[in-house]
Amino acid sequence: MKIEMICTGEEVLSGQIIDTNAAWAANALMNQGIEMQQRITVGDRLDDLIAVFQERSHHADIILVNGGLGPTSDDMSSEAMALAKGEPLVECTPWRLRLEEWFTRNGRVMPVSNLKQAMLPESAVMVDNPVGTACGFRVKLNQAWLFFTPGVPFEFKRMVNEQFIPFVQSQTNEHVEVSVRKLLTLGYGESSLADKLTQIDLPEGVTVGYRSFMPYIEIKLFARGEEAIGSLANIVALVKTLLGNVIVAEERSSLAQVVHERLLEGAQSLSVAESCTGGLITSGLVAFPGSSAYLHHGLVTYSNESKVAVLDVNPQTLDDHGAVSIATVEEMAEGARTLIGSDYGLATSGIAGPDGGSDQKPVGTVAIGLATSKGVYSQMLKFPARSRELVRQLSSAVAYDMLRRALNDEPVIVDYASYARFAK
Amino acid sequence: MKIEMICTGEEVLSGQIIDTNAAWAANALMNQGIEMQQRITVGDRLDDLIAVFQERSHHADIILVNGGLGPTSDDMSSEAMALAKGEPLVECTPWRLRLEEWFTRNGRVMPVSNLKQAMLPESAVMVDNPVGTACGFRVKLNQAWLFFTPGVPFEFKRMVNEQFIPFVQSQTNEHVEVSVRKLLTLGYGESSLADKLTQIDLPEGVTVGYRSFMPYIEIKLFARGEEAIGSLANIVALVKTLLGNVIVAEERSSLAQVVHERLLEGAQSLSVAESCTGGLITSGLVAFPGSSAYLHHGLVTYSNESKVAVLDVNPQTLDDHGAVSIATVEEMAEGARTLIGSDYGLATSGIAGPDGGSDQKPVGTVAIGLATSKGVYSQMLKFPARSRELVRQLSSAVAYDMLRRALNDEPVIVDYASYARFAK
Repeated sequence: MKIEMICTGEEVLSGQIIDTNAAWAANALMNQGIEMQQRITVGDRLDDLIAVFQERSHHADIILVNGGLGPTSDDMSSEAMALAKGEPLVECTPWRLRLEEWFTRNGRVMPVSNLKQAMLPESAVMVDNPVGTACGFRVKLNQAWLFFTPGVPFEFKRMVNEQFIPFVQSQTNEHVEVSVRKLLTLGYGESSLADKLTQIDLPEGVTVGYRSFMPYIEIKLFARGEEAIGSLANIVALVKTLLGNVIVAEERSSLAQVVHERLLEGAQSLSVAESCTGGLITSGLVAFPGSSAYLHHGLVTYSNESKVAVLDVNPQTLDDHGAVSIATVEEMAEGARTLIGSDYGLATSGIAGPDGGSDQKPVGTVAIGLATSKGVYSQMLKFPARSRELVRQLSSAVAYDMLRRALNDEPVIVDYASYARFAK
Repeated sequence: MKIEMICTGEEVLSGQIIDTNAAWAANALMNQGIEMQQRITVGDRLDDLIAVFQERSHHADIILVNGGLGPTSDDMSSEAMALAKGEPLVECTPWRLRLEEWFTRNGRVMPVSNLKQAMLPESAVMVDNPVGTACGFRVKLNQAWLFFTPGVPFEFKRMVNEQFIPFVQSQTNEHVEVSVRKLLTLGYGESSLADKLTQIDLPEGVTVGYRSFMPYIEIKLFARGEEAIGSLANIVALVKTLLGNVIVAEERSSLAQVVHERLLEGAQSLSVAESCTGGLITSGLVAFPGSSAYLHHGLVTYSNESKVAVLDVNPQTLDDHGAVSIATVEEMAEGARTLIGSDYGLATSGIAGPDGGSDQKPVGTVAIGLATSKGVYSQMLKFPARSRELVRQLSSAVAYDMLRRALNDEPVIVDYASYARFAK
């Protein structure tokens, strides 16, 4: 079974946007043990689209086509498919009715241009899109099924998960059982992780993959076949032993999610005081529905005046130690916690760069504090100063991890391999 | 002249890393008026590489190949090219000497595996790499020149700029000047924008593109050729007249950036009080270096207690009107502004969903307030409730836009086409 992908869109081809849909899809398929053979990116030229549909239809069995289903004139996937197959576009009446109903429900008249989204190649099988105006569809041409999906990421993802993957599975005879385990790491680069893991003798059918998404690297352990799946638990245990504190979560793609779940479960409340992270910690939690149950407030006290006025930090502390210091961040954490009586107070203060560093406190220096009912924990770390964004992301991640450890009754301050700690 | 790109590498194909080289290259070429026709991404399988080199060599004139020039066993671009052309790999002696010299200069003995990097297809023309161990090369096959470049981004970028683009230009006779103008819009969907813009009769050589990145849609006007470029200013003026308030920025990709620049220029200070946006407004500004010059603090007062304790909101106001109300958000904005004397105070309070809505205030209801030295402006809007993320992004965008308008001495409250406003 040969599976390929065709990504359409001038803006993807011309590099104005990076094609995250393609990476996401390849990854989602891989999680199901489905391998993609190749991927073609083409612009919005009718002739190019027709040529690539025809050409690939002789080589692939299933082709995931993304984009070009919108209502505007540069959306021409349907038209190109109809021409490639030599058949007319015809109205898909169920979808036109759905569109009209959707606009009526939202108190609007449907723009004429949206009618185009109900015109499909004559032999097309419609694929439902429950969250957008572009329906998907599939058409058989030569040896291939071409499966068309919308470009809007959340519509695309839903259609791939709910309709494309089941369709692929329905087309294969042999179905190999696949299992994936994911370990989220913080503090090592990919090559260091790979060096460590070469010590493990992987059994037949088990492979390791790495996925880097700032500031984490996720280790993925794939097992194909019953025997390999049976060995997975032991492999995971071995990896955890080898990597220790570097592993910060299992089967979760961010620490924000872990902390969110633990706070909800434990009915614990949190207040956050952020300086260099500037709202990242708070907004990472607010992204999850239900966070209002535990999050009292997140105070981005960016200026010294604000640290004093809002968090009751002692001006003398700021004078003696500076804003980026263990002393200040401890008062910030405690100030945030006691303001309206939260169980935990989490605080950051650091130099995200590119300017503002000094010999003593270079760019990348960040103090992080956690106030709890048992006392205040804090550390000052030196993160790689490669970018402002990276420093802020790493600071948020370590802050979340300190809270996670406290919620788990584990030691709050631990080593993360590559981040140096300042003496207290 | 047909130009294509072939990206190699299992990790790019399988979505473990996003192919930023491809986007970068397409963009760099477009800036020179060179258009890329399509892009193919293939894994590290010898047969797949050979097939794609041969197949595309009948269609394209120049093919930029990226990756697969390293010293390890999964780097097989040279070998695949030699096999595709049916010629042997031979040592490129100048490059072997360069490699040996490079290792000697760095006090190291060259590993045997690096010898592989000096083995090129017999007919290859070597392309210098001044910053790495992988030389580039080009080979003519059928109608195409295949131009091979290293995968390491900074080596790749340098080779494209210094060698690939001049090579492409040497192969073309005509050189077309290209210009792009960008308009950021808020409040209309892509189809509504397109409907509006069909009223404009675009001159030859001018095309319109849309780029959607939540919550904005960017309109891009491309002009090719001197005459088209000359007409661009008038077209932009026409688009601005047609769309009015819907256009919120020019040549900028977010309102956060516009507000950041205007606050810095005007030496004005800002305090933010966020509820439903949960730190998005603040962290969008902190993302820019230099924001500490104007941002006093961003207070995510998520709970009612916090609104009272931190922002001095009157508990009676919360009782009478609720947290999501004009009255509350005005007190929040004024509270944030006066706490340490900022020029502006910006506040949001809303129901981001998926739960928490009522008949009177359904999910998507958001109150936004802006306190200034001249008074407090506020409005309560109903955003589409498609997702929590969307409601939060739209709320942030409208909040930024109110501030932008105040900074420009424009009316603060305007209509954005598709968001309904609640009576005050």
